Amino acid sequence: MTPQRVTLITLGVEDLERSKAFYAALGWAPARRQDDVVFYQMHGAVLGLFGRAALADDQGRPGAALGTGAMTLAQNMATVAEVDAAYALALAAGATALKAPQEVFWGGYSGYYADPDGHVWEVAMNPFWPLNEDGSLTLPAQDAD
Amino acid sequence: MTPQRVTLITLGVEDLERSKAFYAALGWAPARRQDDVVFYQMHGAVLGLFGRAALADDQGRPGAALGTGAMTLAQNMATVAEVDAAYALALAAGATALKAPQEVFWGGYSGYYADPDGHVWEVAMNPFWPLNEDGSLTLPAQDAD
Repeated sequence: MTPQRVTLITLGVEDLERSKAFYAALGWAPARRQDDVVFYQMHGAVLGLFGRAALADDQGRPGAALGTGAMTLAQNMATVAEVDAAYALALAAGATALKAPQEVFWGGYSGYYADPDGHVWEVAMNPFWPLNEDGSLTLPAQDAD
Repeated sequence: MTPQRVTLITLGVEDLERSKAFYAALGWAPARRQDDVVFYQMHGAVLGLFGRAALADDQGRPGAALGTGAMTLAQNMATVAEVDAAYALALAAGATALKAPQEVFWGGYSGYYADPDGHVWEVAMNPFWPLNEDGSLTLPAQDAD
């Protein structure tokens, strides 16, 4: 069996400088740059930005047309105000609005935007999933139902 | 600014049962199921499987054709043997081989496969990035170069 682990998320991007500027506008500071990859430290994992063509090449399929959208990266926040602020900041940084933050059927508050390459981010507040002190997320025990 | 945080990764899938079976074959055990989403606990974050059409709908663009491939989820392992074992297990579980594990230019060992919906996973051993005891990853300080 393999560990239930994601240690590195890599986003394929068309223009590394454009993407760096976008994530900088969100307040993200890169920890290091190696060749043509920029790495951001998260809690216990890393986000990397990598040229889209280079990523296809690295994946062993040079020239492949890589798609986006079928995978969402979510940032859970502690409050509705934090969700609104993060969403507004993303749009100000040039993100494409997909769904304005709103109360949703599962009892929380959530919005979606796309980064310059179409990578989809959700910002959400889930009252049933409190965050740990370091911003990490541990699922609560399953409800009885 | 927003925190450098990904708390939830959601994969849009065509057939939830097929995907559950695939990840079960990798040894992943779901922590909970809510409506049509299956959640797996990782270290400080959660992986969710969600119907692809439902994900498009949730993203505020019902009927959208969501693509895959431009985002890679990597599992860093401690040894080459662990990479080989994880890759073999994934293929045995029905994954599509993209790039067999091999020594790569940056000094590590890495392979890529795609899950039943084309979501790309990398399994890698990076001798310069030792894992924490809990399997999480903290970037080492930037090299002097």
